[in-house]
Formats: sequence, C-alpha cells, structure tokens
Amino acid sequence: MSFTGLWDTLLPIGRDYSTGGYRRFAWTAEDEQCRAWFTHSAAERNLRTHCDRNGNLWAWWDSPEAPDGAAAVVTGSHLDSVPDGGAFDGPLGVVSAFASIDLLRERGFTPARPVAVAVFREEEGARFGVACLGSRLLTGAITPDAARALRDVNGISLAEAMATAGHDPDGIGHDEDLLASIGAYVELHIEQGRALADLDATVGIAEGIWPHGRWRLDFTGRADHAGTAALADRHDPMLPYAAAALAARQAAAANGTLATFGKVIAEPGAANAICSTVTAWLDARGSQETALRATVDEVLAAAQRAAGLNGVTVAVRPESITPPVTFDVGLRERVAASLSARGITAPVLPTGAGHDAGVLSAWLPAAMLFVRNPSGISHAPAEHADMADCAAGVEALAAVLHDLASR
Amino acid sequence: MSFTGLWDTLLPIGRDYSTGGYRRFAWTAEDEQCRAWFTHSAAERNLRTHCDRNGNLWAWWDSPEAPDGAAAVVTGSHLDSVPDGGAFDGPLGVVSAFASIDLLRERGFTPARPVAVAVFREEEGARFGVACLGSRLLTGAITPDAARALRDVNGISLAEAMATAGHDPDGIGHDEDLLASIGAYVELHIEQGRALADLDATVGIAEGIWPHGRWRLDFTGRADHAGTAALADRHDPMLPYAAAALAARQAAAANGTLATFGKVIAEPGAANAICSTVTAWLDARGSQETALRATVDEVLAAAQRAAGLNGVTVAVRPESITPPVTFDVGLRERVAASLSARGITAPVLPTGAGHDAGVLSAWLPAAMLFVRNPSGISHAPAEHADMADCAAGVEALAAVLHDLASR
Repeated sequence: MSFTGLWDTLLPIGRDYSTGGYRRFAWTAEDEQCRAWFTHSAAERNLRTHCDRNGNLWAWWDSPEAPDGAAAVVTGSHLDSVPDGGAFDGPLGVVSAFASIDLLRERGFTPARPVAVAVFREEEGARFGVACLGSRLLTGAITPDAARALRDVNGISLAEAMATAGHDPDGIGHDEDLLASIGAYVELHIEQGRALADLDATVGIAEGIWPHGRWRLDFTGRADHAGTAALADRHDPMLPYAAAALAARQAAAANGTLATFGKVIAEPGAANAICSTVTAWLDARGSQETALRATVDEVLAAAQRAAGLNGVTVAVRPESITPPVTFDVGLRERVAASLSARGITAPVLPTGAGHDAGVLSAWLPAAMLFVRNPSGISHAPAEHADMADCAAGVEALAAVLHDLASR
Repeated sequence: MSFTGLWDTLLPIGRDYSTGGYRRFAWTAEDEQCRAWFTHSAAERNLRTHCDRNGNLWAWWDSPEAPDGAAAVVTGSHLDSVPDGGAFDGPLGVVSAFASIDLLRERGFTPARPVAVAVFREEEGARFGVACLGSRLLTGAITPDAARALRDVNGISLAEAMATAGHDPDGIGHDEDLLASIGAYVELHIEQGRALADLDATVGIAEGIWPHGRWRLDFTGRADHAGTAALADRHDPMLPYAAAALAARQAAAANGTLATFGKVIAEPGAANAICSTVTAWLDARGSQETALRATVDEVLAAAQRAAGLNGVTVAVRPESITPPVTFDVGLRERVAASLSARGITAPVLPTGAGHDAGVLSAWLPAAMLFVRNPSGISHAPAEHADMADCAAGVEALAAVLHDLASR
C-alpha cells in the first residue's frame, strides 16, 4: 500500500471535524481505535504484534536469518495527540515505518536482524500530565507507583484507566529484557519549526533535544463574590497567575529560552466569583541548562512575589524535567552516511520538543529524522507536511533501516 | 415546619460533598430536583404552584377575600448557584418565604390580597452567561431570540436545554399580564459583604444596586508548539489576557470600583501548546456609572494594547449591563416602618450584587431585606448565616408581608 493510502485510513480516528484537529488521548476509546488500526495494519503486513507491559505497541518483522539474540532495529513514534493537535505529530512516524517496510520488501530486502515498529503511549502527556509516559515507564524513568497515581482532569488515575481498557496496571515498570533486545531506535517525526524550510531541505537529522520541563503551579486564594468583596479583603489567585504568565515571556526573552503557559484551570470558574484556586502549567525549554534554570527561577520568583502581595499561596510541582539529550554520535553518523549514499542531503538540527527517542537515548543508541513542515506550526490543526515530503521521508527511513538491519 | 426543618430538606440537592459547595445550574437535573422540592413544599402548604412561560416558579397563597384584580404581594428569590457556590445565596429567600407564610398562618393571619413565592431561573447566569435571565425574560429586558440563542459551555442552547427539560422555548418572553398582577416584590437575601456584622445588625434593607456588568473578551491568537515556536513568531493570546487581568485590579483601585476576572477558558489547553484562544469574563461594578465606565474602558484599552503587541486580536461583547437601581422609596419606607413597628432596627445598605429584585424594579415597586453574613464571604462554600439570624429574617419578612398583604 502507498504511504497516502495507509495515511488516509488513520486520518478519521479521533478527529474533531469542527476544527480539523485531533483528540487522541491515552487509554481512551480513540486510543483503542488507534491501537486497532495499528494491529490491523501490522496484520496486513504479516508483522507479529504485541503490547508490552507498559501498554506500548510493537509490530515485529522477524528475521529468520538473524542469529539468536541479534539486537533489533526499532522505528516508530506515537499516536496520541495534544488537544486539537495536528495529524502529523506522532502518526507520521508510525505510518512512515509501515510504508518503509513495504518499500524494503518491494525491493526484495530481507533483514539480517529483527525490525520492529513501536508505538509509545501518552507521549504528549495530554491526559496524565507526564510527557513520554510509555517510554519513561519502559526505561524506569518514572516509578510504577508514581505513574499509577497520576490522575487526569476527571480524577481518573492511570491505574484505573489502564484497568478500564483491559490492561493490568500491576505489571507496569522498567522492562530491561525488552530494552536489551533493541540495538537502535530511529524515530521519524514532522519538524516542529521551520528550519528545514528555511534551509530548503526535505529531511533533517536530530542533533539533540533541549533540556525542558513542565511545572505545575497551584495558586490558592479564597472564593468570594466579585460584586461585593472589597479589594483589600480579596485573596484572588488570578492576579499572581497573571503576573507569572507575563513573567514567563520576560524571562524567556531575557535568557534566550522558551517559556509558555498554555493550560490554566480557574476554579470555581464563575464570571461573578473570585477564584478559590488557579492551576497553571509552565512549559520551559532552552538550549542550555543554566539558561533554562534561570528562566524557571525567575518565573517562580515572580509568582511567589505576586502571590505574597495578594494573600495567596503558590505550590510548585515539577511534573517532568528532561535533561539535555545529545543523540548517539555514532548512530547519527551512520544515519547521515545512509542518506548521503542515496544522495539525500539532511541538515543536522537541534529541537526544543521532547520525544520518546530522547527518553530511550539514555539506554540505547537513538536517532531521529525530521520531515519538513513548511509553516513550522505544530500542536495545532494547521500542522502540515506535503505528501511529496512524506514520501521522501519514507525513502530516507527505508535507507536507514536497510543499512542498520543488514548487518 | 420550622425554618431549619425546611432548610435541611433543601441542603442535599446539588451539593458537592468534597467542597461543601453547590452546583445547581439552570435547566439541569439538579435544577429539576430543586423544582420538585419547591412544588412539594408548596403542596404541603396548600399553595397553588405554576411555572410561568419563562420557567420561573410561583406558589400562590390565594386570598378568598381579595377583590378581583387585587395586586399580589410577591416574595422569593432563586435556587440556582454559581459553581461551588454557598447554600444561602438564593435559597435563603425561598425557604424564608415559605417559613414566613407558616408563621403568618400560625398567627391566624389571612391575606387581603394574593401572596406568592417566586423562584426565578438562572439568576446567577452560571450556565448561559446572562445573570437574572428568568426575570429579564419576564420583563422583556432580553429578547426571546437573544435568550434562546444563548449557549452553555457545552454548546447547548437555552432553547435546547428548555426543550430537554420539557419546557416550550417558543413561549418565552415579556409577560405583561403576570407583571401587571404584582403590586410589590420583596426579596430576602443573605448579605454579600459584612456591613451588617460591622453595624451589629441582624437585618438590613437595600437602598439600591450598583451599576454593574459582565463583558466577554475573546483573545484569538494561533496555536503552536510551546517547545519550538520562537518568541518572535508567536501569537499567544494568554499574554494579553494576563495583562488585562492585572489591569482590572489597577483600574478598580484607581476608580474606587470592583473589577474581577473569575472565569477563563484557554483553548486547546495543553501544557505544551501555545493557546489558539483565551476567553475571559470581566465582572465590573461601581457605586457610580462614570467610575464603572472608566474602569471598563481602562481594562479594555489595556487588553487591546497588549493584544496588538502580541499579534493577537481581541473581541469584546457585553453580556449583561445593568444600570444603577434605586429601589422604590415608598416601598422601602413601608418596609422600614413594618420592621420598626416590631422593634427591628434595619440599616439601609447599597450593594454591588445584582438581583432579580433589581430587574423587576424597572416595572414594579421592589424591595430587599438582607440577613447578616458574619464573614461577608459569598459565592463560596464558606458563605454562612447563623440559624438565629435566619429566624430573625423570617420574622422580618413575615412582618413586611403582613403589612403589605393587609390592605
């Protein structure tokens, strides 16, 4: 099947036709449909599927020629989305993985070691707040107890959501055997930015991932009537939140970093009542850890200062902090050589976006390919890659898999 | 039945036991339970109930002695709440109305004109955004078409919500016959502030209601990835919202008014995505219209300025604007005389809170009694009145009804 043929079968799942965006959240009915799509697509290719202990999906192209214990070459990405996310972030890597296998088979290639397509759950952290949750569990970067206790906005825990979906939450956690069976992980992803467009290149190679993290700020004040409570008597948590949101932009500009408040929940949320609490999430990223640290410190200091002035308390909880990732240089050079040998020029780029490849890179050689995104927009319905560029991405990934799985 | 006996039967409906607050929104299952409670309580008292064309409830104590066309004395309030609201705001007036009728009957009183207990729907505007919606419809202060088109946060229109609840939305609108049948409306309400506590008084009389209003601000930017979009490329609507929230406090302090953002909705609301839109509601009130206008103008100017700096647009829509209300002086003096004759000292107070009595005052003589609220907190679970003060409120209301319905 062609890339576009396969791509089109995934497009309807979890789509919000009013915006064109996607709402595919982990362990929901939409996620289950994505999983069914994956299993069906793998079966069509005679790939052996399994769901690992942490809910990540795998489709294996077994190699009859491989010696016992030959390390696998794994590609893939994720199928979950942010709320109203784009079609490409995640799915492009999964569809490209299947399409690359189709291409290699059409060309008569037989792998000398196992090849697998992986789908990691809850990469976006849109439901339970921790990005790359599936790969973090797999690698032990989060403890099973901490993960099971995570709750979504409706108060449902990860353990409950897994159990509802028929997955045993008692079995989650570090899976050393599975990790040990993997020799390399190469994830193809839409670029989230427009460096490739500016460089007039179709495909890029990731250098590394900026250090980044997510901090939850709980501002607690006191609910009261907006029409009667005197200004001096108020404990309004909206005011220090607003100060923190403005401080984030100032701190990012001052430190050459990125800092964003994209999610805020005001309770009780009545137009005529002062809030009792405002909960907001700071997303911060930077090319350097020191600059990132300075950014976060400045935002939190501004939040504390404004909270004090307004008789409000603020509690800060880091939800996920990811140190800088520099992808394995040896693997990156092999990937570049594979592309170069086929006449593909692929610039090397850093990124501020987190990925499962970054989490896995602490355990095994990992690499990433980026496909051009003309507008650079991501995490939004306008996210886009031209089909011709997607096809070029499949060619690039096939070249890499061919070379890595030949030896 | 005693006040507390009747009060206790209403307390469980729509209660959130985790916070102690209430979630009684118009035309929901909880509202239907409130209505059933009202109908049952009226039936226990042999009061004749009916639901008017706009969904407001009425329980009539008919007077066999009244001449044809004798204008009715109406008391009552509302049963809906803000999200996580207190138990007293609204229900105190309804329960006190029934308890006052009980008291008058125990004392052998027979009214010389009809007496009714009214419950107005959607006083808080918590579901459809327009405060005092039931009384506005009754008086024609909002057109049926505008009201039917109002939508709740889930996109359900008032017309749909009414139809689902079995009420015909085609019949809503100005009800001149019903209005013409009412000679006076007296609403008892918990004080939303602590003026009575400071004056060591149990019951107060309303002088008037500050001009006030609610403005909806829609900030529209562009969703993008929080980890990759450069600061210079962003159109982040959270930033002008934050500037507006801080400007509201500054403008209120400068003008001696009140201005609050208590409700904000950030879309798509992902921690790792820049928002596409932020919608927020400004609640502003002041003792003088000029000061109120200056406050709102300053907030909207700050919002426009910050929106321009951030490549964001902002649309402003007034959702409800209420001019100042001075309650009928003749009725207020009769109420004061009724209380004074029974030895009740009731200070006269202004208020920043809107009420159905204020809407009705444009059509007929209206008055309000306030019952002491020791902390002054309202629109929050901590809202409270002592049962002894509530009993004093019932005595005061009974005194007023006795005098108004005697002639």
